[in-house]
Amino acid sequence: MDLKLLAVAGGQAPADIVVKNGKIVNVYTKEIYEGGVAVAGDKIAAVGDVDYCIGEGTKVIDANGNYITPGFIDGHIHPESSSLSIRPFAELVLKHGTTAIMTDFHEIGVVSGLEGIEAVLDEAKETDLKIYFVVPSHVPFSPALETSAGQFNYDIIKKALEREDAVGISEVVGPYILAQFPDLLTSMDLVNKTPGMTNQGHLADMKGPAMNAVLAAGVTTDHESLGPEDALERVRKGCHLMIREGSAARNLEACLKAVLEAKLDTSRVSIVTDDLHTCDGVNNGHLDDAVRRAISYGADLATAIQMVSLNAARAFHKDDEIGGLAPGRRADINITTGEEDFKVLSVIAGGRQILDNGNMLVSYAKADHKPCLLNTTTLKNPVTADSFKIMAPEGAKKVKVQVMDTLPWIPITTGREAELNVVDGVVQCDLEQDVLYIAQVERYGINGNVGKAFMGGFQMKAGAIASSVGHDNHNVIVMGTNFEDMAVAVNKVIEMNGGQIAVKDGEVLASIAYPVCGLLTDLSAEELAAEKVKLNDAIHGLGSPITIPFMFLSFICLAALPCFAITDVGFINVITQQVMDPILEVLE
Amino acid sequence: MDLKLLAVAGGQAPADIVVKNGKIVNVYTKEIYEGGVAVAGDKIAAVGDVDYCIGEGTKVIDANGNYITPGFIDGHIHPESSSLSIRPFAELVLKHGTTAIMTDFHEIGVVSGLEGIEAVLDEAKETDLKIYFVVPSHVPFSPALETSAGQFNYDIIKKALEREDAVGISEVVGPYILAQFPDLLTSMDLVNKTPGMTNQGHLADMKGPAMNAVLAAGVTTDHESLGPEDALERVRKGCHLMIREGSAARNLEACLKAVLEAKLDTSRVSIVTDDLHTCDGVNNGHLDDAVRRAISYGADLATAIQMVSLNAARAFHKDDEIGGLAPGRRADINITTGEEDFKVLSVIAGGRQILDNGNMLVSYAKADHKPCLLNTTTLKNPVTADSFKIMAPEGAKKVKVQVMDTLPWIPITTGREAELNVVDGVVQCDLEQDVLYIAQVERYGINGNVGKAFMGGFQMKAGAIASSVGHDNHNVIVMGTNFEDMAVAVNKVIEMNGGQIAVKDGEVLASIAYPVCGLLTDLSAEELAAEKVKLNDAIHGLGSPITIPFMFLSFICLAALPCFAITDVGFINVITQQVMDPILEVLE
Repeated sequence: MDLKLLAVAGGQAPADIVVKNGKIVNVYTKEIYEGGVAVAGDKIAAVGDVDYCIGEGTKVIDANGNYITPGFIDGHIHPESSSLSIRPFAELVLKHGTTAIMTDFHEIGVVSGLEGIEAVLDEAKETDLKIYFVVPSHVPFSPALETSAGQFNYDIIKKALEREDAVGISEVVGPYILAQFPDLLTSMDLVNKTPGMTNQGHLADMKGPAMNAVLAAGVTTDHESLGPEDALERVRKGCHLMIREGSAARNLEACLKAVLEAKLDTSRVSIVTDDLHTCDGVNNGHLDDAVRRAISYGADLATAIQMVSLNAARAFHKDDEIGGLAPGRRADINITTGEEDFKVLSVIAGGRQILDNGNMLVSYAKADHKPCLLNTTTLKNPVTADSFKIMAPEGAKKVKVQVMDTLPWIPITTGREAELNVVDGVVQCDLEQDVLYIAQVERYGINGNVGKAFMGGFQMKAGAIASSVGHDNHNVIVMGTNFEDMAVAVNKVIEMNGGQIAVKDGEVLASIAYPVCGLLTDLSAEELAAEKVKLNDAIHGLGSPITIPFMFLSFICLAALPCFAITDVGFINVITQQVMDPILEVLE
Repeated sequence: MDLKLLAVAGGQAPADIVVKNGKIVNVYTKEIYEGGVAVAGDKIAAVGDVDYCIGEGTKVIDANGNYITPGFIDGHIHPESSSLSIRPFAELVLKHGTTAIMTDFHEIGVVSGLEGIEAVLDEAKETDLKIYFVVPSHVPFSPALETSAGQFNYDIIKKALEREDAVGISEVVGPYILAQFPDLLTSMDLVNKTPGMTNQGHLADMKGPAMNAVLAAGVTTDHESLGPEDALERVRKGCHLMIREGSAARNLEACLKAVLEAKLDTSRVSIVTDDLHTCDGVNNGHLDDAVRRAISYGADLATAIQMVSLNAARAFHKDDEIGGLAPGRRADINITTGEEDFKVLSVIAGGRQILDNGNMLVSYAKADHKPCLLNTTTLKNPVTADSFKIMAPEGAKKVKVQVMDTLPWIPITTGREAELNVVDGVVQCDLEQDVLYIAQVERYGINGNVGKAFMGGFQMKAGAIASSVGHDNHNVIVMGTNFEDMAVAVNKVIEMNGGQIAVKDGEVLASIAYPVCGLLTDLSAEELAAEKVKLNDAIHGLGSPITIPFMFLSFICLAALPCFAITDVGFINVITQQVMDPILEVLE
């Protein structure tokens, strides 16, 4: 028992910090009233009239009449989507008032398994960001269709759930429940019977009886609602609605307006980001941006704040620990402006002041990464231009192929048939038809797989781009207009121990190294944002109009996203979950 | 994984039960709309449009346009206050729509320890009432001031918390935290670090800094709010407000009106009963009665239902399991009338129909009680009239004594000084001054203690009454106008293996046996209610105007309730927590 905390709360000892002269946003009552907050160690000792806690040595912070809110909680985020290693990521989000996240570190898990995730959780301990670990429910997503170095099965999940920071399992995919994946059902049973644990859902596109079935299995939240119908069905069926408003998908306007217009009880509605890209984070912020938007869509301040604090905590049964300004809760406190132009001015996380009127007070040392996070790119066989060639049947001069096109605003693929010429037995890309070569190269030294296909929608006119970030296996994805540049791009990515690159005529136009798991950099958010701009500019210079091409590319590898995908195993028909030959027939 | 449940939810198999043609009270959204509920096994498979679940063998229940609500949950109740053993108690509350309770079985624990509680939990398994076990945080309340057979210390609490049905520790007394009782703080630390567990508070009279301190220690709920100020402070400070509306204390009107008038978010407000006396339960009901009252105090139907279902579940982090109509939740379902004249018509508990339009469909067999629950009354020394005599100092003829008076409407004691005559060295009671003899006799065969004092407020004019129910030690409490009747009363109670009795001139006027722990009977609620009327009538015939005299008597033994108490150890000054001599001075 923290006797100092009790003494401060009880008025027998001075607080470490007192925030005074503010307007308390009380997420328990949805009231806003004048008051302050007293802190002892890493906990809140008192809220409201806290003058009695000021004594010798108390640091008094004047809120100057601004609002005092709980620290924000992102109930569903993959920090790896920022491409930042955990410490600069923590700096980025803390600066915007996020003091706790729930995450599965699924991408780290794909590359380095539970050992890698535990190493990152250790690195995170040096930050002031509170992290709750939601154990990945399955890695990789499609074991038969892709190669990953890390794996999560029931035994590993069971072990991970015993960690003190574990709060459940993540990304429980609806159709996988309906298909009765044995490891998944066993893991869910374990979660269902373990107090405090939850099955966090990934219930894209589910409705009606199918939705009833996955909820009956014990899924309690979902972050995949796209519009009013999804949102209302989830809340009404007792499924905590995590409305996603992130860099990759923005569902807040449609879903929040539906909830507010229907005048639903909002205690089981929270806002999450799922993905936060560094440029977005640097330019717009994190959950503070979501609060601004929520207010613009009609939420009052207290309701918006509740959705990024208490409600997220409730979804994990952690509302006694975080999510509100109350005695005994973690001292996560923001000072903010009001509804007019919502902004986080100052941040206290775990009792430590992080931000003071917009100025960061902390900077975390670069982590000494454990070996399991480093040197994760190994080719079993050398990669050359020949590695990417798709050979036509002997004697063919023209073939009909299946091309996959990305939509321009979201990395969802559709199918298109195209006629391509054959030269020296090799099927040729066709820039006029916007048909490029795409391939994924296995990078863990396991089997030397290279999957190959044809890609449309990126509209590149020259060169090649490659990346060691590709859901859900993070092999090296490469796309190009010629085999030589593709080989250069892949080999440079391997040399960098992972990263992203644009190549033209054998020369590197721009690149970023991701030495941590081939996914993350130790650059600061601002440094990385600047590098990303350069890299994207280079790709736009190659002719592609896609705003964030590497993000799109990373999802083209996802064997679970319709309609087609490329993995190291081959060209995937997502609907049938089969590998297919991109060559459909010989025309000449 | 319950694959049949998934099949029913998914529409591949017929439901066991479908309730149709009702108005769903959705406690997640606070909406009310037309629909039904489908049940598979002990779980809900679907809610809303459930026609697709009807098939061969489905039992279809027509709600006839009535409301369909979740089963009710009492988040804080001591079933022993009904004097019923657990199976008839379950029948009583199930009949009124209560399908789950959170309880510590503290009184069983006092008499028979954890072994006794576990035996009762085993007996309860044969019923359809879901019981969550909140482990007693300390038994007895005042170890130095009373003798109990059962004890709860940290080691026992730790063991009990490992049970599957454990949800935390109960009755965490505010001042005991402030006094830093070592076992209590260690137990709280264990709870604080164990996911899903909660420290359930008993925070009578606490406010301001003292309240902040106990909340900072980890207490998350309280059921001791008496009025608006208490209620608002608790919700604002993040403490779940359990508004008590039971047989012994009624705080709903004052507290609920305060919450509603202040327009507070009510997601952390529930209604509990703490104590439910059998006569009250038989005549008025349980939480159904609380809902009726809540509506009369201004709550709308959905809010009132939320307060006796979802919100209570949330207070224990069990909202994924019970508390609402949603796929995967325990199939606890009530069919009720509406706001006008709220009544529970039909009840399904754990997927089994219990009540059909007011008719009970189940009757539980009398339990074969384990030995630890029986034969719990043993006197170390024989009790005679002499046992109760308070001797004056040698030669005294008149003494001034400290009398304790009960208030007439609540068993709170105040002090009064009186002058009493001494005859043959024995201080005499004085009916004209309303001063009776009172004593408590240790009944576990441990030390033969008899504590003695003088009692006012009961106004008995003849005879004696005795009871083996006395908080917080359940020794035999006896009160009378003469020593002979007191001895007869105590010896008869011991002969019955516990019970309550009224005696006059050596004859038994009325009695009820409580053979289970000296606290409970196997009679049905209706049978017991009839017996209680007879027993109370007998005591009223002895001149006492106190409506439920044995309930009052049971609290006069509580060394924690001001200002005075009697235990087997002696006459207790509760304020100083000291045993005192009731004789203050010799006057003649």
